[in-house]
Amino acid sequence: LVVGIGDDAAVVEPERNRLDVLSVDALVEGVHFDRRFTPPGAIGHRAIAVNLSDLAAMGATPRLALLSLALPPSLPLDDFDAIARGIVETASRHRLHVAGGNLTRSPGPLIVDVTVTGTVKRRQILTRSGARAGDEIYVSGSIGAALAGLQVLQSRLTASVNTEDTEDTEERNRTKGVSTRDAESCIARYLCPEPRVRLGTLLARNRAASACMDLSDGLAEGLRQIGEASGVGVTIDADAVPIDAVARAWFEAHGEDPLTTALAGGDDYELLLTVRPRLRGRLEQPHRHGGVPLTRIGVCTAGMSYLVRRRDQGHLTDKPLPSGFAHFR
Amino acid sequence: LVVGIGDDAAVVEPERNRLDVLSVDALVEGVHFDRRFTPPGAIGHRAIAVNLSDLAAMGATPRLALLSLALPPSLPLDDFDAIARGIVETASRHRLHVAGGNLTRSPGPLIVDVTVTGTVKRRQILTRSGARAGDEIYVSGSIGAALAGLQVLQSRLTASVNTEDTEDTEERNRTKGVSTRDAESCIARYLCPEPRVRLGTLLARNRAASACMDLSDGLAEGLRQIGEASGVGVTIDADAVPIDAVARAWFEAHGEDPLTTALAGGDDYELLLTVRPRLRGRLEQPHRHGGVPLTRIGVCTAGMSYLVRRRDQGHLTDKPLPSGFAHFR
Repeated sequence: LVVGIGDDAAVVEPERNRLDVLSVDALVEGVHFDRRFTPPGAIGHRAIAVNLSDLAAMGATPRLALLSLALPPSLPLDDFDAIARGIVETASRHRLHVAGGNLTRSPGPLIVDVTVTGTVKRRQILTRSGARAGDEIYVSGSIGAALAGLQVLQSRLTASVNTEDTEDTEERNRTKGVSTRDAESCIARYLCPEPRVRLGTLLARNRAASACMDLSDGLAEGLRQIGEASGVGVTIDADAVPIDAVARAWFEAHGEDPLTTALAGGDDYELLLTVRPRLRGRLEQPHRHGGVPLTRIGVCTAGMSYLVRRRDQGHLTDKPLPSGFAHFR
Repeated sequence: LVVGIGDDAAVVEPERNRLDVLSVDALVEGVHFDRRFTPPGAIGHRAIAVNLSDLAAMGATPRLALLSLALPPSLPLDDFDAIARGIVETASRHRLHVAGGNLTRSPGPLIVDVTVTGTVKRRQILTRSGARAGDEIYVSGSIGAALAGLQVLQSRLTASVNTEDTEDTEERNRTKGVSTRDAESCIARYLCPEPRVRLGTLLARNRAASACMDLSDGLAEGLRQIGEASGVGVTIDADAVPIDAVARAWFEAHGEDPLTTALAGGDDYELLLTVRPRLRGRLEQPHRHGGVPLTRIGVCTAGMSYLVRRRDQGHLTDKPLPSGFAHFR
C-alpha cells in the first residue's frame, strides 16, 4: 500500500504477472441480516466473508478491502466498534488489508458495503463458463446448515415475542427434533460462515476445476448459473447432495423436504465446481483441497435441462431442479 | 477487462509501470440528495462524479467502476433506468468502465455506492501531505455555486409547499437578488458537478502540485486537511477566494456572509492544490491545466494556524478560518 486511509484514495502497487480481481457485496439490515438476532461482530465478519467467498470462487488470493458504511444515528457506539472489530479480525485472518473506506449517516437501515480486490495468475482464473458435458459436479463441505440456523433464530424470536419463558423456547427446539447444542452449530454456520479462501486458491493452482462459483445464492441457483454460463445442463443425484445432518433433522421436523429446502437455501458459502473426469485424481488427495470435503453430486449434460435424479423404490426418476433462491426478495 | 459482469467478480489486467488508485463513495437518499428535487439521472451522474473527483485529486486516470445499488421497492422502473443511464453516460464520457456491481433491495433510502479504480505513475501521485511552508495555495474554478444551487432547490420546495402559484416562487427568487436564469446555473452546479479529471491528470504530469485534494467537503475543511496532512498552517486572502458571482448575490440576499458560507459549503468538486513558488510558472499556460481557471488564494505557513486575512478600511486583520462542512451531519 503506497497511500492508505486519510487521503482522497488508496494507492497500491499491482502484483507482477497477476491479474486483479474485484468484487463488491453489500449487507443491508432487514434484507441480509436482522439486527435483533445478529450480533454486531457477526455483521462485520459476514460483510467480509461474503466478499472473500467471491474471491475464492475466482481462485484469487485476497488483497485489499474498501469499506462503505451507512450508519443509523441510533446505532450504539459499542455496536459500531464490534462491527469494525468483526471486519478487521476476519480480514486480517485472510490477509486482506483494509485500505480505505467511507462513513456516512443512514436515515434507514445499517448498510455495510465492501469492495475487495485479489490477485490471480491468468491461467489459473476460475470462471463459471468452463464446464463441458461430461464434467463431474462437486460441492465443498455441506449445505443447508446456514438456512436451518437462520430459521432457528427466527423461530426463537417469534417464541420470545409470544412468551418470556426461555425454557419453553428450548423445549420447543428440542421437540422439533433438534437439540439446543445442534441448533447452535447451525446458527454458527449462518452467523459466521467460513469462506473457502484456501480451497479456492488450491483449486486455481492445481487446475482441477473447469468452472467454479460460490453458493451465496444457494445450490439450485448455482447449478443454473454454471449451466447457463457454460452452455450445459446438469443432472444431480438426490442422494449424493451433502445436506448437513442437523439441518436435515430440522427441516424434516418442520415438515419440509430436506433436499428441496437445502437446494433453495442461500447463505452457504461453499464452492460449487465442475471437473473433467480425467482430472478427478487431482481432488483425491486431501492436502490438494486443504482438507475440505468435496462431494461429487452429479454431472454436466449436453442438454440444457436441470434435473434431480431420485431413487424411488428401485426406480430412477428425473425431475426438474427446484427453483432456487429468489434474488431481490 | 478479462472477466466482466456475470461472474463472481471482475478480472482486469493491471497496467504496466503504474500504481492502482482505489476509492469508494456513497450517495444516500436523505443525506446526500433529496429525491424530491434531484432527478434520477443527476443521482447517477453525481454518484460517478464524486468518485471521479477523488481520482482527479490523486492525479489518476479513471479505469473501472463497481456499483452497489440498494433500491427501495417503491422506486419506479423509469427512475432506475434514468439512474443507470446517468451512471453509464458520465462513466463513459470519462473512459471509466463499469466492470460489475451488485443490486439489493433497500427497506429504507435509495443508496448508490460506487467504487472506482484508476492508475497513476508512482512519481506523479498527488497526495495531501506534500505541502511545505511557503507553498502557494490555488483553487480551481469557483466555489459556492453548488451550495447556492442546493439552497435555491430547498427554498423552492418550501415555497411550493406553501403556495401552488409558481409565479410567486419565481418572483421570490428574483426579489432575493438572483434571476431565475442565474439560479438555474447554480442548480446545475449542484446537480451536475463536473469532476476535474483532466486537470488532475495534467497536474500529475507537469508535477506542479506539492499537495492536492478535492473540495467535496468544502474549502475550509480542505485547507485544514491539507494543513494537517502536510504539517503546515495556511493563511487565505479573503478577497482572493473565487466565489461564484451568482452564489455571492444569493448569499448576500439571504443575509449570509458570502465568504464564510462559501468556505463552509460542500459539493464543490473543485481541486485545491499547493505549489512551490519556483514552479508557479507551470500553472501559467492555460493548456497546462486544460483551460480551467486556477486562482491563488493564499500561502502555507510554518505555524499550524488556519487564518483568513481580510482588508478592513486599509488594515489587514487575520481571523481564524471558519469551521467547515460538518462530517456525519
